[in-house]
Amino acid sequence: MPEYFLWFDLLGIAVFAISGTLAAWRNHMDGFGVIVLASVTAIGGGTLRDLILDVPVIWINNNAYFYAIFVAAIGTILLVRNRLTIPNNTLQIADAFGLAFFVIMGTQKALDHGTSSMVAIMLGTMSGVCGGMIRDVLCREVPMVFRGELYAFTCIFGGIIYTSLLALAVPQLYAMLAGMLGLLLLRLAAIRWHITIPVFGKHHQELNEP
Amino acid sequence: MPEYFLWFDLLGIAVFAISGTLAAWRNHMDGFGVIVLASVTAIGGGTLRDLILDVPVIWINNNAYFYAIFVAAIGTILLVRNRLTIPNNTLQIADAFGLAFFVIMGTQKALDHGTSSMVAIMLGTMSGVCGGMIRDVLCREVPMVFRGELYAFTCIFGGIIYTSLLALAVPQLYAMLAGMLGLLLLRLAAIRWHITIPVFGKHHQELNEP
Amino acid sequence: MPEYFLWFDLLGIAVFAISGTLAAWRNHMDGFGVIVLASVTAIGGGTLRDLILDVPVIWINNNAYFYAIFVAAIGTILLVRNRLTIPNNTLQIADAFGLAFFVIMGTQKALDHGTSSMVAIMLGTMSGVCGGMIRDVLCREVPMVFRGELYAFTCIFGGIIYTSLLALAVPQLYAMLAGMLGLLLLRLAAIRWHITIPVFGKHHQELNEP
Repeated sequence: MPEYFLWFDLLGIAVFAISGTLAAWRNHMDGFGVIVLASVTAIGGGTLRDLILDVPVIWINNNAYFYAIFVAAIGTILLVRNRLTIPNNTLQIADAFGLAFFVIMGTQKALDHGTSSMVAIMLGTMSGVCGGMIRDVLCREVPMVFRGELYAFTCIFGGIIYTSLLALAVPQLYAMLAGMLGLLLLRLAAIRWHITIPVFGKHHQELNEP
Repeated sequence: MPEYFLWFDLLGIAVFAISGTLAAWRNHMDGFGVIVLASVTAIGGGTLRDLILDVPVIWINNNAYFYAIFVAAIGTILLVRNRLTIPNNTLQIADAFGLAFFVIMGTQKALDHGTSSMVAIMLGTMSGVCGGMIRDVLCREVPMVFRGELYAFTCIFGGIIYTSLLALAVPQLYAMLAGMLGLLLLRLAAIRWHITIPVFGKHHQELNEP
Repeated sequence: MPEYFLWFDLLGIAVFAISGTLAAWRNHMDGFGVIVLASVTAIGGGTLRDLILDVPVIWINNNAYFYAIFVAAIGTILLVRNRLTIPNNTLQIADAFGLAFFVIMGTQKALDHGTSSMVAIMLGTMSGVCGGMIRDVLCREVPMVFRGELYAFTCIFGGIIYTSLLALAVPQLYAMLAGMLGLLLLRLAAIRWHITIPVFGKHHQELNEP
């Protein structure tokens, strides 16, 4: 396993820990509840991915993941305490970065264990999406994955870029960076211009609501 | 493993994917969020069952499960777009069918791995109930399992029919069909006539509410 | 594995089953939904711990855990039906006892499988906290772990007492009892005097709410 894998993993963990801490702050949580929410957001998706792949969970033999969570959470707390304005969409943007790292890393980890490309993209999406899903459920918000703006689609899109580039024999590191960048740009564009894909006809919804 | 196992599994997956898609439609979700909710409902329970039994997760080496989800979700979307009225309890009925398939298949899979009948029935119930539970939590609805009408009881009832018939040396396929049918009929009857089991005295509840 | 491990485990299971049943009662749930909520609260955390440690899930080969849940749930139902007043914080106190058993047992189980002390304390906290978290999410309440009063902190505190005493060569049983007692007393004190740790400056929160 190349060394940059660990760094991508730690970066994803840290960014999701920041997004968990921001969610805790927005929801008036206090004390160590912040650490819990930061940890759940950061390791939820990767833990599920590793359980499903039946490999040792990433953080079980490596304290570095918890240090990354602590540093990110405490740094975010200090930032929030000392600045008066945090833009409203900071949480969404931190989440987008976490997504980029986790989806591509998760896809690669699944491929390493012999899954098909489709299952790998699904597992990558799952590891990117589930930490944030648990965060939103615990905060009793509508999960970000359902609040539209191409959330799940960007994950699948990034996974397709990555696996396609691998199939074209592009070196792994470049394919990863391209997949992460493609995912991130699409997600940021979707947040910026509120891009959505309506699949149900609008008027049908209103007529049939119970 | 007999071939009809795969078909029961795929049918359960498809029916739960339909119920997830209907839940997404009722909750005004759009785009790929529908696919996420359909997938989570469809594979949530079976994934948990396989993780607990420590066997490879059903869909990890078989793309067929994802095709079943896609086909079921897209078919449901087309149906919803082209019909003006979907009866209010369609979601409950689709859920009942998924329950019938998953509970009996889950019970059998646990027995295959040497658990006691009681643990097998519990695991079957868990694999039937958990996908829908996650669906309802993500939609921020009171989980169907708690909205009464014998929900958990029908699962245990179906599991008992199945394991009892097996103990009486009834051939596996017939025992399965009997268990599924018993579970389904009891659940549909409970939905139709709003059958519930009150366990707490009604008046105590109102007196002590904080 | 010493025999008292099984008893601590069963006690933790029973206490969490009581807290799950009380939560079901407070939320007007009925019938077998109570059993579901009691079971989920009781085995949720331990199941997650065992999945992550990749060891057989505690209840998979031992019916005793389900008997403990049934007895605790039915006993609680009878108590609630026959008494008019259940103090409002009974749920919190039952939860505190469950926490004490599960956190220390979880920490020990992780140490048994060769994790570092820090990861062991995290896994212990996780196994203590997650059952109640799922309970609260299913009841659509703000998870107790976020409603302050040192919830997560007491878990980490108990884990630190236990691992420190082990490092000082205190016999395991005494170290366990000391860890459980320390955790329980701190949690009960936090409930009694509403002790919290505010980490975000209060005024910042109000200014930036979206």
